[in-house]
Amino acid sequence: MTEQLKTIGVGLAGFGTVGTGVWETINKNGDLITNRSSNQFKINIVKAAVKDINKKRINDAPPNLFTPDWQDVVNNQDVHIVVELIGGTTTAFDIVAAALKLGKTVVTGNKALLAERGTELFQLSKLHNAAIHFEAAVAGGIPIIKAVHDSYVGNNIESMTGIINGTSNYILERMTTAGLAYPEALQEAQQLGYAEADPTLDVNGWDAAHKAILLASLAYGPIIQPDEIYVRGIERVTSTDIAFANKLGYNIKLLSVIRKHPDGQIELRTQPSFIPKSHILSSVNGVFNAIALKGDASGDALFYGRGAGKEPTASSVVADIVDAAHTCSSGAPHRGFLPYSDNTSIMSIDETSTPYYVRFDVTDRPGVIAEIAQILANDGVGISGTHSPVDPENPDKDFVDMVFQLHTCNFGKLRSTLKKVIALDSVNSEPVVFRIENL
Amino acid sequence: MTEQLKTIGVGLAGFGTVGTGVWETINKNGDLITNRSSNQFKINIVKAAVKDINKKRINDAPPNLFTPDWQDVVNNQDVHIVVELIGGTTTAFDIVAAALKLGKTVVTGNKALLAERGTELFQLSKLHNAAIHFEAAVAGGIPIIKAVHDSYVGNNIESMTGIINGTSNYILERMTTAGLAYPEALQEAQQLGYAEADPTLDVNGWDAAHKAILLASLAYGPIIQPDEIYVRGIERVTSTDIAFANKLGYNIKLLSVIRKHPDGQIELRTQPSFIPKSHILSSVNGVFNAIALKGDASGDALFYGRGAGKEPTASSVVADIVDAAHTCSSGAPHRGFLPYSDNTSIMSIDETSTPYYVRFDVTDRPGVIAEIAQILANDGVGISGTHSPVDPENPDKDFVDMVFQLHTCNFGKLRSTLKKVIALDSVNSEPVVFRIENL
Repeated sequence: MTEQLKTIGVGLAGFGTVGTGVWETINKNGDLITNRSSNQFKINIVKAAVKDINKKRINDAPPNLFTPDWQDVVNNQDVHIVVELIGGTTTAFDIVAAALKLGKTVVTGNKALLAERGTELFQLSKLHNAAIHFEAAVAGGIPIIKAVHDSYVGNNIESMTGIINGTSNYILERMTTAGLAYPEALQEAQQLGYAEADPTLDVNGWDAAHKAILLASLAYGPIIQPDEIYVRGIERVTSTDIAFANKLGYNIKLLSVIRKHPDGQIELRTQPSFIPKSHILSSVNGVFNAIALKGDASGDALFYGRGAGKEPTASSVVADIVDAAHTCSSGAPHRGFLPYSDNTSIMSIDETSTPYYVRFDVTDRPGVIAEIAQILANDGVGISGTHSPVDPENPDKDFVDMVFQLHTCNFGKLRSTLKKVIALDSVNSEPVVFRIENL
Repeated sequence: MTEQLKTIGVGLAGFGTVGTGVWETINKNGDLITNRSSNQFKINIVKAAVKDINKKRINDAPPNLFTPDWQDVVNNQDVHIVVELIGGTTTAFDIVAAALKLGKTVVTGNKALLAERGTELFQLSKLHNAAIHFEAAVAGGIPIIKAVHDSYVGNNIESMTGIINGTSNYILERMTTAGLAYPEALQEAQQLGYAEADPTLDVNGWDAAHKAILLASLAYGPIIQPDEIYVRGIERVTSTDIAFANKLGYNIKLLSVIRKHPDGQIELRTQPSFIPKSHILSSVNGVFNAIALKGDASGDALFYGRGAGKEPTASSVVADIVDAAHTCSSGAPHRGFLPYSDNTSIMSIDETSTPYYVRFDVTDRPGVIAEIAQILANDGVGISGTHSPVDPENPDKDFVDMVFQLHTCNFGKLRSTLKKVIALDSVNSEPVVFRIENL
């Protein structure tokens, strides 16, 4: 068989952590990959663009692999598949666009690029019959992209609910189990390499939101613009709310919810939410990711695994390279994702409904509960529970936390009602609101 | 686009529960499938072979869809993909073989057929360049076949550990949580439709073992003969052992273990085993399935979902049909699984090592623990705990259960040591042995 093997050339743009992982995986398991691909091809990394070609690298890549110019990678005639691993949305865009225009298949793990500039790139993909593969863009080593795109192709996917940012999940877990405050937990995550020096995109929810956009596009067809969706991060989660959640039987997790409603509208939001401790997503700890999926045929499924890191991400990049190599070696039309027109629109956040946890900072005087409860009642917002713990060391203190658990209502109604509550003299600040997820 | 759409014809052999599910799914979600497949084709079910063409059916399938002769399906020129759903290993074999010989792609959920007669069928597949797809054969609606074959193609898969028989899992759960005896739990499962009238293959472990054989072939390359592997079912699990397991912090689950050892040998066994309650597999209840997978790049992952049933199985069959349709519509070589030669062999069960739970029925007289412990010590089998509960209502009874928890040793050594223990006068019968799984 060996002499019949086609060689499929791969070019890397970027040779950092993940690029090194891809190099190592293909060199270590290359024969296995060929065997498991019915001996149809051999994958060869031809060229890699790097910032500094003189940088010392701890692997056996030959010096002539490297070039400082990404065009040397994209334009190389032996490169059939371009793997973009530099991140960002500017040069990365140029690289991906140039590759697609040459009809070359692109593999990328760049969720920000696809979520922010997918419209242009998927148009190029269609125009030049060149696929964009992006398994590594969502949930690292978990093959959720292939599952949604291929394995559940016959399903109307009712919902996907995911913990898809490991950094946030680690921080929230440490706040919950070790009682750390947010800044301490973030610092610990940074020391362990789970958070970057600039953790903004992880902790403000946008990394997860970019992934959620891609999942929604795959499941429902449209390109979704980031400004259409609702995103909140974990920066304002406090130990107070973590403790209340725990007491009430919940864990707080940064959750992305993607759900198609019967009227065709897509609910798409990312925010820290209360999840019942009994639900399996509540047990997803550390930097692990998990996505619960419900299809109209498949029923409930769950995918769990490492959401980031060198090897897990390389595992997904390599799977995409092999997918692409099958297409390149056969000349078949690609089967990468292409957006398709659909009667979908993103549901306004004000129309989305869940139960809620609302915490007020109130001045403790007779009648304050009654006042708040009356406003909620007038607006038809049902109360399922109230909690106002007394500080045993200071039972007569003036300012207290008052927690209301509210029955399901839409967020718009809640917002307008809360405005009236805030207007009360005894309510001292904006309330803290978390959704309680019905999973 | 519509006029450019190719039609890919599908023929069904069998139109029972799953066949009906496939018909309904393709009719309900056909446009969605076409959209999500980049508008490359439309899938059309052309013909279905059934035992009784006059049987009343509760769907809108036209009467001329049906034929009593499977050859009408396989030989139909408009049928590009043959879907075998009749089960068994005789006529099903003839159908699959005939389709492959005509170069037609086969989709099947028949794990027994592939595990028992895969050697011949995969040879035909290779010879005629016609793929066999079998996502539905393992774990129903969970896309584990595609995950192992495609998504983890770059990984050396270190292990897969699965709960892959829903019937057994339901029965064991009911024995655990409701205190039912095995016959009662089986009867309940039958009444609910979770067990068949003849439940043999489910409860004797062979349904799970067939699936484990397929997973091992996918991960490691060889065709494995059923007589090479170790299989035990749940028929002899007693309430006594369930209660002991619970007390010691475990649940008993029918577990399939697939593990590649550094020397290339494959450990492959299916048996009821003790799983720590803290492990996620311990929480897989009811008829759900789950597979924990560990790859050298991906790290730990878990797949969870419905392991059987009309719609979940149809979901996987339809995914395979769409995979096959992509190939048929493009003329590309298939990328179904083909066994590849490998330096692997199945590890003898006597060489596999775990800790153990061993329960003896002993005559309670002074010195019996010392006698057993001495035999174990002489053979170097370490004891991590002993339990011999006193019956409060009959503290002086003559025959008691004596449980030993043993440190890791290989099964051959355990067997030879237990023979010596059984020879003791005070030991009244063969001991009950369960593995304690290190997960």
